[in-house]
Amino acid sequence: MKNLNICIAGLGNVGSAVVGLIDKNSQYIKNKSNLTINIIGLSAKNRDKERNFNVRDYKWIENPIDLLNINDLKPDILIELIGYEKGVSYELVKTALSQKIHVVTGNKAMLAMYGQELFRIAEQNQVSLLFEAAVAGGIPIIKTLKNNIFLNKVKKISGILNGTTNYILTTMETQNKSFEDVLHDAKKRGFTSDNESKLDIGGYDAAHKLTLLSTIAFGVNVDFNLNKVEGIEKITIEDINFVKHLGFRIKLISESFLINDMICSSTKPKLIPLDKPMANVDGALNAINVETDQLENLYLEGEGAGGLATASSILSDIFEISNNSKFTSIGYNINDLKKYQKFDSSNLESKFYLRIRVKDQPGVLSKITTYLNDSNISVEKILQTPDKKENNIPILIITHKIKTSELLNSVNKISDLEFVNENISIIPIE
Amino acid sequence: MKNLNICIAGLGNVGSAVVGLIDKNSQYIKNKSNLTINIIGLSAKNRDKERNFNVRDYKWIENPIDLLNINDLKPDILIELIGYEKGVSYELVKTALSQKIHVVTGNKAMLAMYGQELFRIAEQNQVSLLFEAAVAGGIPIIKTLKNNIFLNKVKKISGILNGTTNYILTTMETQNKSFEDVLHDAKKRGFTSDNESKLDIGGYDAAHKLTLLSTIAFGVNVDFNLNKVEGIEKITIEDINFVKHLGFRIKLISESFLINDMICSSTKPKLIPLDKPMANVDGALNAINVETDQLENLYLEGEGAGGLATASSILSDIFEISNNSKFTSIGYNINDLKKYQKFDSSNLESKFYLRIRVKDQPGVLSKITTYLNDSNISVEKILQTPDKKENNIPILIITHKIKTSELLNSVNKISDLEFVNENISIIPIE
Repeated sequence: MKNLNICIAGLGNVGSAVVGLIDKNSQYIKNKSNLTINIIGLSAKNRDKERNFNVRDYKWIENPIDLLNINDLKPDILIELIGYEKGVSYELVKTALSQKIHVVTGNKAMLAMYGQELFRIAEQNQVSLLFEAAVAGGIPIIKTLKNNIFLNKVKKISGILNGTTNYILTTMETQNKSFEDVLHDAKKRGFTSDNESKLDIGGYDAAHKLTLLSTIAFGVNVDFNLNKVEGIEKITIEDINFVKHLGFRIKLISESFLINDMICSSTKPKLIPLDKPMANVDGALNAINVETDQLENLYLEGEGAGGLATASSILSDIFEISNNSKFTSIGYNINDLKKYQKFDSSNLESKFYLRIRVKDQPGVLSKITTYLNDSNISVEKILQTPDKKENNIPILIITHKIKTSELLNSVNKISDLEFVNENISIIPIE
Repeated sequence: MKNLNICIAGLGNVGSAVVGLIDKNSQYIKNKSNLTINIIGLSAKNRDKERNFNVRDYKWIENPIDLLNINDLKPDILIELIGYEKGVSYELVKTALSQKIHVVTGNKAMLAMYGQELFRIAEQNQVSLLFEAAVAGGIPIIKTLKNNIFLNKVKKISGILNGTTNYILTTMETQNKSFEDVLHDAKKRGFTSDNESKLDIGGYDAAHKLTLLSTIAFGVNVDFNLNKVEGIEKITIEDINFVKHLGFRIKLISESFLINDMICSSTKPKLIPLDKPMANVDGALNAINVETDQLENLYLEGEGAGGLATASSILSDIFEISNNSKFTSIGYNINDLKKYQKFDSSNLESKFYLRIRVKDQPGVLSKITTYLNDSNISVEKILQTPDKKENNIPILIITHKIKTSELLNSVNKISDLEFVNENISIIPIE
């Protein structure tokens, strides 16, 4: 029989679900794993918010830092679910680790920015800093990489790591609505806030998660600056409809791989063929595909958000701490992590989808094709769609394979043409 | 730095891939995990078979039992890849465990039949008996259940667990060929043997694997007799084409869940809606979906067979042994496993697909519909397809939801009608 005393800082959806689960399943957990989890203290901004449990059943601590010493009792594990990259959460986690308290967190922003430092402090103090809940909600991708397939050489890891953007893209398609309308709905329904949506829609939240995946998959330093990040703000409903017609779906894809001993990590919209599982990941689901020297594809799909699913990941970290004597947070010793240079992805080849908006002048389509040809962009498919706005007609193009830098050069020239209206939209094809 | 001495019994595809991988990746493994894996002995039926490595680089042991004591050196781990449920492999594994040697095996038949005994011997001797390679090839589903989401209450586990049958079903559809033709091809190409194909096609191999999944998911005794098993022998190309037209694909589905404190474990063909990921699992891939109290769906897909992918699972077990001090093979103490009664699945409700072959008599379709109606089978869709054999016309039906036992009763009556030719084919719909 093992006893673990835990305290929880932050009681939003996930924190509340953790409390509820531990309460509801305590006997089940005891029977199944000989483990007793005692919640010895809770702390959050607002004590009186309505929650799925009665806060009075637990010891309430006003200042989260005091969770680390409750009447001279030191918790075994601090569960940090406050969020934000710096501030209270960072100080709290750092202090806990220094006091040899294990930390379980869902805070991807903090770890993407300060993980290198925090994992080192954990290692020095021989405690764990675990973060299954920080990446892909309920999908146990961290443990899969760190424990299950650690002796594989990972070649590439890619996935849909942000539920909000995936929900927006899915809803735009199913309801034939604009990006702005769907985002507005999502905010109104409380699915995302102004603050969150900036991180989500801009691709930063997914890039935070990819930073952590890259570290575990390739042993690269935790370094957010290795990421190239592009959001979904510019995706229009006509993009979605046109590419669907051609057998693709637009997804915000985060991917990371080693090339020429450098790392290429990007989060950006991509066109995924409809017959790939990743194209059919709907709503707030997340998915991850891992390619290794031993596995052509290992594909995981599940809930990327939600209190209960993410609480499952928190519990799995508690379980790991209860079982493990080695307490390695990321699989590697921190000094074995390597500094990699960022690979210049403009050297990569790909097919591309282009959307060019033009004035409705006679012969504009033939002018565009001539310019494309002169600019060495070889066209696989081209479509001019009818539009109400006569002076702003979209021309939609699928190119053959071309080096990104060459395409960008050519697109820049085309942008300068007087009958071309706005920025040309460019999305690579998987 | 940790040193593990291992020996390998059985050098087919998987065994050879394990030797090749450990040789090729030894430096990588050392760097990544501080682990050195020494192969101290090999044994297989035929020393001179051509393999991807030179057997002369390793110590060859004629009798596999002698692997357990090589010049007074006891291995840390025996890798058992001989196969077959009883015989050499069973004796070897039992002896190894009794001598406190960890065992890593890919032998699902042996474990499904004698796992309860063997896991107990492992526990008594405080060693591990690990078997990631026994279920779903390279997909780390055992560790996912045992380590990653162990504190979840599993509600249902279902999946495609046999690559050969899935390959046959996929190929029948893509090449529009009969079951017999595709099986013949597969044998000719060496994908499966007479011996193997009986276990594969009859559903037994998948049921062996489901037996192990049920134990880890629900804590039920390892008991193959809890399975209801039905193979794919009766699936015809017209079944496949007709259901595809209706938005389904036929898959051999293994599923297990608790109901009324009993266990319902079955392996049988089912119709899966095309928009579910499981319907799009092609060729020799495997897939598993887990539903728990915390996760609506956790879906894993990957290679279900193949030397390298399965070797990845063997390595992951070696890694677990190198890390773990607890050495629990199945997550539970063997005495905590529970004996469950088998739930009578004929009490379950489902929609069904029926294929009835009839003589070409005037008014036969109306006679059938009348009989269906009289037999309380409510029809959602019905199709009479043209056929060359005039006296053997297929009538294809999708029913509304009905209790399995009621359906079987009614179908029995219809079978007895003089214009009905052969056994009626019945496939439940997911």
